[in-house]
Amino acid sequence: MPILDRIQGPQDLKGLSFDQLAALAGELRARILEVTGENGGHLASNLGVVELTIALHLVYDCPKDKLIFDVGHQCYAHKLLTGRRDRFQNLRKKDGLSGFPRMEESPFDAFGAGHSGTAISAALGYARARSALGQDYRVVALVGDGSFMNGPSMEAFNDAGHSGEPLVVVLNDNEMSIDRNEGALARYLTRLRARPGYQRAKRRTKSALDSLPLLGRPIKAAIQWSKRKLRRLLVEGEFFEDLGFSYLGPVDGHDLPTLVGALRAAKEMERPVLLHVLTTKGKGFEPAQVRPERYHGVSPNGAPKAFSYAGVVGETLCQLGARDKRLCVITAAMREGTGTERFARRFPERFYDVGIAESHAVTMAAAMAAGGLHPHFVVYSTFLQRGYDQILQDVALQGLPARLLVSHMGLVGEDGATHNGGFTLSYLLQVPGMTVLCPSDGRELSYLLTWAQAHVPGPLALCYGKQGSPGDRAPVAMELAAWPCLREGQDAALCCVGETLGLGLSAAELLERQGVRLGVYNARQLKPLPEEALEALQGLPTITLEENAPQGGLGGQLALALGRAGRQPRLLPLGLPDRFVAQGTRLEQLESCGLLPEQIADRIARFLREEA
Amino acid sequence: MPILDRIQGPQDLKGLSFDQLAALAGELRARILEVTGENGGHLASNLGVVELTIALHLVYDCPKDKLIFDVGHQCYAHKLLTGRRDRFQNLRKKDGLSGFPRMEESPFDAFGAGHSGTAISAALGYARARSALGQDYRVVALVGDGSFMNGPSMEAFNDAGHSGEPLVVVLNDNEMSIDRNEGALARYLTRLRARPGYQRAKRRTKSALDSLPLLGRPIKAAIQWSKRKLRRLLVEGEFFEDLGFSYLGPVDGHDLPTLVGALRAAKEMERPVLLHVLTTKGKGFEPAQVRPERYHGVSPNGAPKAFSYAGVVGETLCQLGARDKRLCVITAAMREGTGTERFARRFPERFYDVGIAESHAVTMAAAMAAGGLHPHFVVYSTFLQRGYDQILQDVALQGLPARLLVSHMGLVGEDGATHNGGFTLSYLLQVPGMTVLCPSDGRELSYLLTWAQAHVPGPLALCYGKQGSPGDRAPVAMELAAWPCLREGQDAALCCVGETLGLGLSAAELLERQGVRLGVYNARQLKPLPEEALEALQGLPTITLEENAPQGGLGGQLALALGRAGRQPRLLPLGLPDRFVAQGTRLEQLESCGLLPEQIADRIARFLREEA
Repeated sequence: MPILDRIQGPQDLKGLSFDQLAALAGELRARILEVTGENGGHLASNLGVVELTIALHLVYDCPKDKLIFDVGHQCYAHKLLTGRRDRFQNLRKKDGLSGFPRMEESPFDAFGAGHSGTAISAALGYARARSALGQDYRVVALVGDGSFMNGPSMEAFNDAGHSGEPLVVVLNDNEMSIDRNEGALARYLTRLRARPGYQRAKRRTKSALDSLPLLGRPIKAAIQWSKRKLRRLLVEGEFFEDLGFSYLGPVDGHDLPTLVGALRAAKEMERPVLLHVLTTKGKGFEPAQVRPERYHGVSPNGAPKAFSYAGVVGETLCQLGARDKRLCVITAAMREGTGTERFARRFPERFYDVGIAESHAVTMAAAMAAGGLHPHFVVYSTFLQRGYDQILQDVALQGLPARLLVSHMGLVGEDGATHNGGFTLSYLLQVPGMTVLCPSDGRELSYLLTWAQAHVPGPLALCYGKQGSPGDRAPVAMELAAWPCLREGQDAALCCVGETLGLGLSAAELLERQGVRLGVYNARQLKPLPEEALEALQGLPTITLEENAPQGGLGGQLALALGRAGRQPRLLPLGLPDRFVAQGTRLEQLESCGLLPEQIADRIARFLREEA
Repeated sequence: MPILDRIQGPQDLKGLSFDQLAALAGELRARILEVTGENGGHLASNLGVVELTIALHLVYDCPKDKLIFDVGHQCYAHKLLTGRRDRFQNLRKKDGLSGFPRMEESPFDAFGAGHSGTAISAALGYARARSALGQDYRVVALVGDGSFMNGPSMEAFNDAGHSGEPLVVVLNDNEMSIDRNEGALARYLTRLRARPGYQRAKRRTKSALDSLPLLGRPIKAAIQWSKRKLRRLLVEGEFFEDLGFSYLGPVDGHDLPTLVGALRAAKEMERPVLLHVLTTKGKGFEPAQVRPERYHGVSPNGAPKAFSYAGVVGETLCQLGARDKRLCVITAAMREGTGTERFARRFPERFYDVGIAESHAVTMAAAMAAGGLHPHFVVYSTFLQRGYDQILQDVALQGLPARLLVSHMGLVGEDGATHNGGFTLSYLLQVPGMTVLCPSDGRELSYLLTWAQAHVPGPLALCYGKQGSPGDRAPVAMELAAWPCLREGQDAALCCVGETLGLGLSAAELLERQGVRLGVYNARQLKPLPEEALEALQGLPTITLEENAPQGGLGGQLALALGRAGRQPRLLPLGLPDRFVAQGTRLEQLESCGLLPEQIADRIARFLREEA
């Protein structure tokens, strides 16, 4: 019987020998490989922290102690060890386990995650609550080196060092964020890693700890012992010390006895501690070790390679870049996911990977535009939320022609609520002077991006979904129609944004069988709202369709615009509900929002009956 | 004739002796004191950088070289020296000089500012543009120590250190952000400042530089000389070196010869350089040196002490805090401006000043709520834009009862476009599960905050203006009316948000003289939109009034809600235009938006005529 099958919760780890724990690590890896192979998910980062997760649960007493994951894409072993083994096969599926920590899923998930750089803030919040309320639990945050350099992490680290609150930040140094790590702090960590004495000291501790039964003597004695031992072996990390943290490390993140000793020492120090742990992304699975960025997020085995906008973006940027020497491209540690890797290879001197630093990227893009470049920041919508203030203050207020290529608009499927781009229009349409375009397929994306070079002198956001359709239709030139009409019909007008155009056309098809003829428009220019598009609606009952809550999107905008113009047809705003949309396949997510073609057709039919 | 009167631009500085420059510094201070005394503005920070600004313009060749101010509230001497002396008396006035750098105002303002932490990003953007385009200008960013620890600064610093791009970051270390500096890095800077040898070395350099005519020998030789000199005297700042920056400093920021020497050395180093400069906030004006936080922003002399919501907030939090031991208060370096200083004095153990770190503050508040505290983050609306992503991901998605007390909603007057809270509703109403309340006066603020403790179990945003009215009306209990009716009338319904209620009531008064009777509602609960409030509108022509663009605010929400409910009265959405609103008095700003009572009355009358 596998050891994993006997683990109902972290308490079951405590009776195991290090040999058994090592075997368990192997079983965890096998299970993670198996399920991500079937369901997709984050592979390399999870394989890298298996021993670290075991050690954390050996040393800490969760859920009383608070274990907080940064980003959270490395929580699979944690979920397998905390009573969710039987549900793990439904990872990332509708009603199944989330691929990220979720407070509502388990008391062992002390704080949810999805975006970078929140764990130290959350840990400090818990630590301060604990102290203010006179409670006595421990708080530990697990933060990757890419996330550690994210702005909010640094803000929190500075505050935590100042606070003196006992808490432990485990810096999981795998020498990369999602792609490879950028930035100066990475070099500093590398220097710490390479200190002479580290390898020797590691071997010494390991052999000493190997012979120490974990529960063979009183825990206290073991801790005292390892503290003394560790103090001697750990090199000083003066940067961290300067910021008020005691620095321990670096320690080998795949060496369980060392990890346990170091974590115990850190836990007992009664002040802010940074424990620097070295791990290998993809550990235990050769292909992922060699190309971890390729295995950061994996698709289910055998899934046909879906069309992705990323490919079109990369190709189009290369074409434009060949003609325009001023064009440059920015990514925030997402070369592969955004399709910018291709540009990076062809024009390395005009490609900037700023690390996980979306706030910085937006301001920098604005200044690059001021300096005469033509910057294109390609970024997932959910992550660009980090640049909201900078979009307003640095780009729009100054009218600078930075281009935001906003990927993953709308529902993104299995990554769930933290990754949906469901607020894309809500935060972009409100920006004064921003041109907002939403292509509905790959060819249109390429067309609009090219068109914008010549015709949009100010800030531009070009928003598109995650996958979408390759685009068989030749795009209609903007000169001919800001909102091309794809289907004529006089019973009502259906205005579709981006990815929803396919859904809307299918719904119109279904309605035609019932004798209802819809005019279907590709509402690709959302800001400024084209006057001629409003006129084209001719006072017909109007339906808007978008993957955004209508209030912040086309629905609300059209309701006001039509009202202002004294044209007040009845309006049915279809879009996302005013709640977060949980994980599932994209189709399941659409269904939960009533946005499958049959559902859309039904809602429109009902609306038109009420109208009549 | 004062020296200042002869300065048409930075080139006129170059023929002056150090004695003359010192006299000029005195004249600049006098002018700044005089004009801020009349117009209000940022005093202490501007007095602190007078010599530094002179030195920057001596060493750099602006506007070819790019001088970028972080936050920008320290740019007055810069404006006086760059051809704007004659307009300086109109500082912060309508159509006058902005209190912040604005690209549209002068080519010497290389990048606009207003919020913290953007200058290094902007400097790096310019530096990369320069290198990519093969140009040869210099880039220098002036960053305060509080701003330096802001997340985006750290992201940019990390990227800049990695880039190797020649640029200079002048760290203006005055040992405080707006209030006093928080955080661990501040301690590190203090340690650098206290290094033995610094005082001695400073004196040595000063006397050497004093005897050196600035333009007496070829610049090159002077630079070589000062480089050698400086290299010997400057202590190492290993933190900065580790991050890829050459560290120079600390140098006395009020000692012109030393500053000029150090800046020249930094400028020539052809790589990222951090120059650590020590200044005294309020330098040259005793009261501001002693209590710089009191003189951070000053009101015009003799202006009557206006009512401010900050006082009510402080008082109410103290009352609630006395009854509820779990209540705690967070500020991001704005104790005085937010009114939380009072709570800090009374309950220091439950008060957290995180520094300029709004992103961190929001996540930390969420975790404090998860840990059982009742956190209240009091923050200006324009700065909370930095926490937009965290509000969605960490607070709302997890349904945690963090309280956001969002001050400075709407138009804030003289601070202008970067400080208006004109997007408050746009970014808060879109947040699923957020309760959004907008009190219309001081007593109602206190009432709603108290009421919410018992009745709002989830996330709450309480939004209010900068000054507003003290509140003579006893607030109507929420149980009696979500939207109290303040004036009966059957010709139309006017729904007013927050501060606009006074404007709306006055407009109704004016209209009554024309025989038009408006029902006037205090639309204080905006989310969830109260069903009974919609019913109360009874299908009347409806006007919404708010200091937000209607699309993201009540106008858009009501247009959709009334439409959904099958009630479609005509709607006139009054609010901010879809552009940034420039500085002026609050009344001038309101006028420019058509929101003075007479303008409102006219617009309503016209609307009702069209209706009829």
